[in-house]
Amino acid sequence: MVTSLVLGGLATIGNPFVEAKVDTTNEAKIKNVIFLIGDGMGPAYNTAYRSFKDDKSTPYMEKTAFDQDLVGAQETYSWDEDQSVTDSAAAATSMATGVKTYNGAIAVDIEKNNTKTVLELAKEQGKATGIVATSQINHATPASFGAHDESRKNYNSIADDYYDELINGEHKIDVMLGGGTAYFERKDRNLAEEFQTDGYSYVTTTEELLNNENDQVLGLFAAKGMDKAIDREDDVPSLAEMTDAAIERLSNDKDGFFLMVEGSQIDWAGHDNDVVAAMSEMEDFEKAYERAIEFAKKDKHTLVVTTADHSTGGLTMGRDGEYKWDPAPLRAAKRTPDYMASQIANGSDVEEVLSDYIDLELSNEEIQSVKDAAAAGGVSTIDSAIEKIFDIRSGTGWTTGGHTGVDVNVYAYGPQANKFAGLQDNHETGQKLLDLFR
Amino acid sequence: MVTSLVLGGLATIGNPFVEAKVDTTNEAKIKNVIFLIGDGMGPAYNTAYRSFKDDKSTPYMEKTAFDQDLVGAQETYSWDEDQSVTDSAAAATSMATGVKTYNGAIAVDIEKNNTKTVLELAKEQGKATGIVATSQINHATPASFGAHDESRKNYNSIADDYYDELINGEHKIDVMLGGGTAYFERKDRNLAEEFQTDGYSYVTTTEELLNNENDQVLGLFAAKGMDKAIDREDDVPSLAEMTDAAIERLSNDKDGFFLMVEGSQIDWAGHDNDVVAAMSEMEDFEKAYERAIEFAKKDKHTLVVTTADHSTGGLTMGRDGEYKWDPAPLRAAKRTPDYMASQIANGSDVEEVLSDYIDLELSNEEIQSVKDAAAAGGVSTIDSAIEKIFDIRSGTGWTTGGHTGVDVNVYAYGPQANKFAGLQDNHETGQKLLDLFR
Repeated sequence: MVTSLVLGGLATIGNPFVEAKVDTTNEAKIKNVIFLIGDGMGPAYNTAYRSFKDDKSTPYMEKTAFDQDLVGAQETYSWDEDQSVTDSAAAATSMATGVKTYNGAIAVDIEKNNTKTVLELAKEQGKATGIVATSQINHATPASFGAHDESRKNYNSIADDYYDELINGEHKIDVMLGGGTAYFERKDRNLAEEFQTDGYSYVTTTEELLNNENDQVLGLFAAKGMDKAIDREDDVPSLAEMTDAAIERLSNDKDGFFLMVEGSQIDWAGHDNDVVAAMSEMEDFEKAYERAIEFAKKDKHTLVVTTADHSTGGLTMGRDGEYKWDPAPLRAAKRTPDYMASQIANGSDVEEVLSDYIDLELSNEEIQSVKDAAAAGGVSTIDSAIEKIFDIRSGTGWTTGGHTGVDVNVYAYGPQANKFAGLQDNHETGQKLLDLFR
Repeated sequence: MVTSLVLGGLATIGNPFVEAKVDTTNEAKIKNVIFLIGDGMGPAYNTAYRSFKDDKSTPYMEKTAFDQDLVGAQETYSWDEDQSVTDSAAAATSMATGVKTYNGAIAVDIEKNNTKTVLELAKEQGKATGIVATSQINHATPASFGAHDESRKNYNSIADDYYDELINGEHKIDVMLGGGTAYFERKDRNLAEEFQTDGYSYVTTTEELLNNENDQVLGLFAAKGMDKAIDREDDVPSLAEMTDAAIERLSNDKDGFFLMVEGSQIDWAGHDNDVVAAMSEMEDFEKAYERAIEFAKKDKHTLVVTTADHSTGGLTMGRDGEYKWDPAPLRAAKRTPDYMASQIANGSDVEEVLSDYIDLELSNEEIQSVKDAAAAGGVSTIDSAIEKIFDIRSGTGWTTGGHTGVDVNVYAYGPQANKFAGLQDNHETGQKLLDLFR
């Protein structure tokens, strides 16, 4: 019975998996908030990833780390030309600042006025703050938490905002980890140096990050976006490693912290209609999610809220009338089709590349389709040919290179998790996040 | 604060919309269960329908009747050849009987043994029971609640089960409303007559249904499936009217009732990749949902649980890189493309039919595409050409004529609604339903 749990100081949100996790007593006041965004992570990505990870030797499907914390869903539409399919900037602005806006907006409303972000509010209250992403760290989603701009395309001025916009005379973001050296070490301005002058550490490899102990750090591990997890070299950290590094630092602040973590390239995989990369990025994101939950479990005063900004690509499990979605061929990939296509476009032998990076017996027809693509065009043509092999074998469908409008899942763990249960519009999510710090 | 609500005897499931609705005290013991299934109603259908119904004169999107009761999601995979995309029979069997099974199974497990359904358990306990659908009433979904068969294709023996399988010497289903005269008035057996001999009424029009006062009734309003709501004539009842008629009768039983209501043709619209029909069927289903909720609100001892068996067609809001989904063209349709295609195939003038049933200024190119289809092929070719006009204008994408594997939404209202919060596998939904009557 629910009632008995409640009398003990614990309210269930009704979820048998969540029971006894949601402590609503005053003792469990929120100190820290970790907000995770799976960019492009529509509901089909969550379902497909469960199947991808499933242990086939057991009859029922195993749950993912996310599943046990499912509490609701989120509407994603933006105000770009009436109500339309959102981009990442508008959606992130809604979640970061509590207002609906137009596609491309970075923490500004439809009249292009700056809107206060939850990260800024946390900093005003003396908390430590951080943003972590696998895109360049000044890309649309993290930017909407730490900058203000009428256009997501103004990468340089967004990066400048991170340095220039002070709160109570101090920089507003203590930890920035992701890609983006191209924007922070520019000819016209070297923000990496400026941050270092002000006491930040600047790191560019996994080793440097792990050996660093400074609570304020700028870590940039790629010129722009980092490689997809499955293609990443050891000197580039995983999203989980960056999340750990951020939490370690931020949790030193006795006033608490706000941290935004983005699995940025689930979306990029979706734009590319690349289901191999999509699963790789879901895995990278799930591992970061697990680190956040582990910390919250120990800390007991940390709320972890996780959602997506929109879905991407129109991914479907099943296509062309067939009643199957088989992740086995996707598990056989050791690199993304993009990676393989680059190798081929750079002169490597088609058959060699395919056999090096795909642990499957490909048919002559499949191999020929990639050879034809290599003869006909460049990387993107070859990439599409390899992707098609995985799509057909797994039964994956796509309808667009852009975003789609379907509601996305909402996961919450920790005190006041129940505030995020049920259906919420994305600006309501933002208002709820802001309310946590008011 | 949640706690204060809880002390008052009400537990919130954390949903601001649901607060104070979920009464978990013993006084609110469950007497009646209404289980609604939107066949094929994947999450994109729920989101698209919200946009379809939205009042564009207000800035934010209005919620649907379903939205306020969203509590979680459901996994849908079946055990057909390993874990695969489910059909309606396997999914309904899981929800009706608490076991996973193979595609095509009607309330039998993978070894083809009969499995007890929640409807049968309710009847064993002296409750009244009913099934309502817009497909033939012996179609896969309703069949899995009231029959047992190794194959959904055995329509006649499924109909026979409804009559022949007795519980405590009595027929197990008191109210059956849907289509299906072809299976109940057969040359080899006339089940409609047999039911009447045993005291049931038999009705075949809206008027007959509304004028009838017998608590036991068989109502069949089409040879097989009923027309889509948007194409339906007045002598064929809406799903809401059938739901009302069922609740009126079943609620006369002082022991309570179990009622299964299916919005059957959301799925059929999806198979046909017909977004006009999909929205028509969502509306028909939503109105039935509202009737169930209205009854539950007054009754206070009724639990209403609503979900889908799977998604169909790979419907996406957005296609081909465009960031829009515009429902306005869909609202301009007065009939389904199927209906229009039939008229054209039967000799009606293309331009006349299109202008009679589509309240839009069509381009010459669009009109020509339907003329070309009429010259080239039959109903299905013409149907596809008309559907394409709506797909392109609205920005609707599809990936299959079959089902897809994405998790579906779960809605719950009433006592113990919180049992259905979070993520559940479809056989767990069935176990929870059975537990309500144990």
